[in-house]
Amino acid sequence: MRTLKITLAYDGTRFVGWQRQAEGESVQGLLEDALAKLEGAAVTVHGAGRTDAGVHAFGQVASVTVSFTHSLETVVRALNAQLPEDVRVLQVEEAPADFHARFSARSKTYRYQLRAACVGDPFTRAFVWQLAERLDVAFRSVGTDTNSSMRTVFRSDVAVEGHLIVYEIAGDGFLRHMVRAIVGTLVEIGRGWRTVDSMAQLLDGGTRAQAGATAPPHGLFLVRVDYH
Amino acid sequence: MRTLKITLAYDGTRFVGWQRQAEGESVQGLLEDALAKLEGAAVTVHGAGRTDAGVHAFGQVASVTVSFTHSLETVVRALNAQLPEDVRVLQVEEAPADFHARFSARSKTYRYQLRAACVGDPFTRAFVWQLAERLDVAFRSVGTDTNSSMRTVFRSDVAVEGHLIVYEIAGDGFLRHMVRAIVGTLVEIGRGWRTVDSMAQLLDGGTRAQAGATAPPHGLFLVRVDYH
Repeated sequence: MRTLKITLAYDGTRFVGWQRQAEGESVQGLLEDALAKLEGAAVTVHGAGRTDAGVHAFGQVASVTVSFTHSLETVVRALNAQLPEDVRVLQVEEAPADFHARFSARSKTYRYQLRAACVGDPFTRAFVWQLAERLDVAFRSVGTDTNSSMRTVFRSDVAVEGHLIVYEIAGDGFLRHMVRAIVGTLVEIGRGWRTVDSMAQLLDGGTRAQAGATAPPHGLFLVRVDYH
Repeated sequence: MRTLKITLAYDGTRFVGWQRQAEGESVQGLLEDALAKLEGAAVTVHGAGRTDAGVHAFGQVASVTVSFTHSLETVVRALNAQLPEDVRVLQVEEAPADFHARFSARSKTYRYQLRAACVGDPFTRAFVWQLAERLDVAFRSVGTDTNSSMRTVFRSDVAVEGHLIVYEIAGDGFLRHMVRAIVGTLVEIGRGWRTVDSMAQLLDGGTRAQAGATAPPHGLFLVRVDYH
């Protein structure tokens, strides 16, 4: 048997999310079905991050144990030949037998893309939360290296490029909807509805009820997963 | 009566093209319907470039004669409120009574986006012609300032940024499918199927039959239209 580490990108627009569900198409389901064809038997893959419905990935990582002996290049090609164009396998690597995409992960990086402009952009609308008003980007000063009660955030920063606002956060784990709740809170700060300090308090062990409204899924990307 | 110059962007994916057709949704049709609501009567708009089905625009220009007296800002807002998100009015300006988006145009610029990489990109696939093989970009040396029998090409150049290849061409007019035929020919040069010289001959008055296969529409954008 051999353990493979699979890195993949997907446009999450039409999926029920990473995880296989009773109804609808999931990325996990498509990847398992494609691998099962090579294996000649059902397989189970483990994903590093269970992205929700509508959330995208530049670099999701999955692990799987298989018995087929195809070369790594052949596996990449065979999987991409079977997968739809909105899911692409970027790389397949050999991994130690105990490698597990989720449990072995040291850090995950998420990105959230916003656009603040009166007129929307037809070309990025599937991947950006469009806000009609200007935001006060004072929230750029929101601190990093914050320890929450359960998770450690290594990095949290905002880059502004023209109308585009890109928020990135890296940490050792994220609660469900955590990044989208942070972004929703940042937007409320940008609108002047709450103070910059309230964000630091929130990251520093606040409750979900103190956060802003959850930002929509289509601006969120799982960028990368790092391992030891 | 007042003549308006309307600049708009659209994702052409789901449209039958710029021009109103008996069947299917067109950008012209949507814009005319939105303007008719403001005018309280049917209106006819003229587009600078009749983009084909699946072709996009960063800066299509349309002209229309109307009698309503709303401010330009109000017109932008009212049109965008009615149009779907894949069509956005970027600007509305007052124009001379004899302004005609097509006949007054001095130059049009088109862009064609290609991507040469083994693995496709899920996020740009709607706007890029994905080619699995590496291309020899010797075709970057294809000349500019060429006079064809009927049209003048002011500029024609290729930029390579990582996997992305961006071809731009500006001229005083383009025959139907001309840009896509040029790109199809460039790709055949890049594949080593024909010489760089054959392109110069083609731009310099060759026939359609001498050109390469027509490139697919989804990589093509009408970038801008310039007027005197």
